[in-house]
Amino acid sequence: MRLAQRMESVPRSYIREILKVTAQPDIISFAGGLPHPASFPVDAVASAAASVLEEAGPEALQYTTTEGFPPLRQWIADRYKRQGINVSPDDILITTGSQQALDLVAKACIDRGGKVVMERPGYLGAIQCFAVFGPDFVTVPLTPRGVDTDALRQAAGDAQVFYAVPSFQNPSGITYDEQTRREVADIMAETGCLLVEDNPYGELRFMGQHLPPVRAYASAPSVLLGSFSKVVSPGLRLGWVCAPQEVLNPMITAKQASDLHTPGFTQRILHRYLMDNDVDTHIASIRARYGAQRDAMVQAIRQHFPEEVAYTEPEGGMFLWCTLPEGISAEALFHKALERKVAFVPGRPFYVDETDDTFRLNFSNSSPELIEEGIARLGQCLREYLGR
Amino acid sequence: MRLAQRMESVPRSYIREILKVTAQPDIISFAGGLPHPASFPVDAVASAAASVLEEAGPEALQYTTTEGFPPLRQWIADRYKRQGINVSPDDILITTGSQQALDLVAKACIDRGGKVVMERPGYLGAIQCFAVFGPDFVTVPLTPRGVDTDALRQAAGDAQVFYAVPSFQNPSGITYDEQTRREVADIMAETGCLLVEDNPYGELRFMGQHLPPVRAYASAPSVLLGSFSKVVSPGLRLGWVCAPQEVLNPMITAKQASDLHTPGFTQRILHRYLMDNDVDTHIASIRARYGAQRDAMVQAIRQHFPEEVAYTEPEGGMFLWCTLPEGISAEALFHKALERKVAFVPGRPFYVDETDDTFRLNFSNSSPELIEEGIARLGQCLREYLGR
Repeated sequence: MRLAQRMESVPRSYIREILKVTAQPDIISFAGGLPHPASFPVDAVASAAASVLEEAGPEALQYTTTEGFPPLRQWIADRYKRQGINVSPDDILITTGSQQALDLVAKACIDRGGKVVMERPGYLGAIQCFAVFGPDFVTVPLTPRGVDTDALRQAAGDAQVFYAVPSFQNPSGITYDEQTRREVADIMAETGCLLVEDNPYGELRFMGQHLPPVRAYASAPSVLLGSFSKVVSPGLRLGWVCAPQEVLNPMITAKQASDLHTPGFTQRILHRYLMDNDVDTHIASIRARYGAQRDAMVQAIRQHFPEEVAYTEPEGGMFLWCTLPEGISAEALFHKALERKVAFVPGRPFYVDETDDTFRLNFSNSSPELIEEGIARLGQCLREYLGR
Repeated sequence: MRLAQRMESVPRSYIREILKVTAQPDIISFAGGLPHPASFPVDAVASAAASVLEEAGPEALQYTTTEGFPPLRQWIADRYKRQGINVSPDDILITTGSQQALDLVAKACIDRGGKVVMERPGYLGAIQCFAVFGPDFVTVPLTPRGVDTDALRQAAGDAQVFYAVPSFQNPSGITYDEQTRREVADIMAETGCLLVEDNPYGELRFMGQHLPPVRAYASAPSVLLGSFSKVVSPGLRLGWVCAPQEVLNPMITAKQASDLHTPGFTQRILHRYLMDNDVDTHIASIRARYGAQRDAMVQAIRQHFPEEVAYTEPEGGMFLWCTLPEGISAEALFHKALERKVAFVPGRPFYVDETDDTFRLNFSNSSPELIEEGIARLGQCLREYLGR
């Protein structure tokens, strides 16, 4: 057989492989990136599904438009307006989860050999997705205030795309401060590099000052991605792209070619759910839950981790990021931790090089009690591993 | 902005653009490829959705595996066994409609500049999807018995993929006879070209002898695509790939990168529907409906079309294909027909060249009465246009 060469350089998702190992019920897993199932509005989705089929009938099960269900696109545009971002529903394309938006970005915006600037560390789903299209990756480091803007200015000059997760980044938990957001917006305008801003966690802030997306500061066209996975349900696979027409048009063509359209059935159910329920109250309850879990994790780390292990203290989102002393392998630690029935994700897949002294902890999917117990086990493991 | 070059050579779907023009309620449209909405099991899907959420609860709304819902993959494998095709659920990957399967085929099997053999005419969704990846298209003509096997043997030698719709082809309605299926299977084994067999209409045979997919005759590995769009509902966007591990593995990686996974919610609903209902009786009712509509269309064409217009008489599926006398433009006819409030799809987008003397008629979405009226209008139009 003569298969395509492009897949040879694309890694199978490390996390999804790890999840198979860590799925045993006696393991406390901070490895995945799963929302807490108690946050899913099961009954409300059931009501919405019944209403949709009763009211729209066969239309809910027919082929529909590539762009997405118009009332859902309207809802998204209206919500942006509340953040000071003026867009029309015509600027919104519904996608099969925001992972698909990355595929469409790659198809429409990234040439083979084209330069793509990534945060370091960066979201592994984006690294994997873009890798299919053979770009030339360049990375810029993250600082506690966000991306290193001097490095970004250097890198962006001849790049096609800068991919960023400015709020509660996956994997680091870092959030760009306001000054960094303004600078990033300026650098994009100066260089003609297209900002692709991924914002799946933006609504999940537990503390600190709310900041709008970089898009709100931008004078140049940019692409903004959103998702319902973290605020309603990931299993519905509903996300979106918000972009000006010159970028959205080739993405719509790419979407037609990729799956014709996202299921109209799930789009209508979600829209009905959003109409019939107070989504802000729902999101506030998720914030309260994850905030408590985040606090439990930070406190447990303070108590149980050796001092040489550095960690971020995220103001929102789902992840916290740890850095080991130089030269210490997180992969080796991972295997030792598994013996103690606790799991995390070693940092390597979040780099385009082979860096191996960091790891990611997820706090959205475990109760404070499990977090305390799991971090205590991991602390014990770290002390032994570091010889303390 | 520095957008990607690849989308410049990809056409926006002609049909989806045409559908916007032909959507006015006073137009009788044979342009789309829509299943009849009366065939959608709305109440049964509503019951299935309620059961899924009641029984699986939050799990139905959580992230799930890339490969798909295991019981649904089992159901598909079991159904293949009844056709003499022995595959395991591990050979099945659930996709977001079978259009996505084409995207995954392209990613895993088609290099930029790689040779892809297409039927002539060929399915425009595949032409569009593959075009994103910049292959070198080569076409082989269709005869009333199926693909021209001499031409295929010539073309397949150094090709990566032969894409075929052997049963009730879209757009032509042509079905490969048994001898042609055997020859295609042999040619693939001889040449090492990978058969990608798309079979969305295989269960919709109205007359003639049932034939299994070419896959059943194949000794070499091949890829077989299937879809629930034509037998249950297109709005659920559920299709699949059946392929041996060496082809399926890179496709699973590509699927992770493309949208992580198809919604678990809709997969569970479909599986529940398949368990709780007699799907064979349901499909028989669709066959009866489309068969009557096909008969109405063939009869009306006999009565109303000028003799110089050739047409296929499909034994199943959703489409019938007409050929005008040489040099007569179907595009021009399309505009004249619109004035008379009847629509079809001109053949041009089904070719990789600019051939313009054919057109496609859909019979699945209109009642026999509308078909009789629409074909009478089109016949009148043809007589005037051809000067009879």
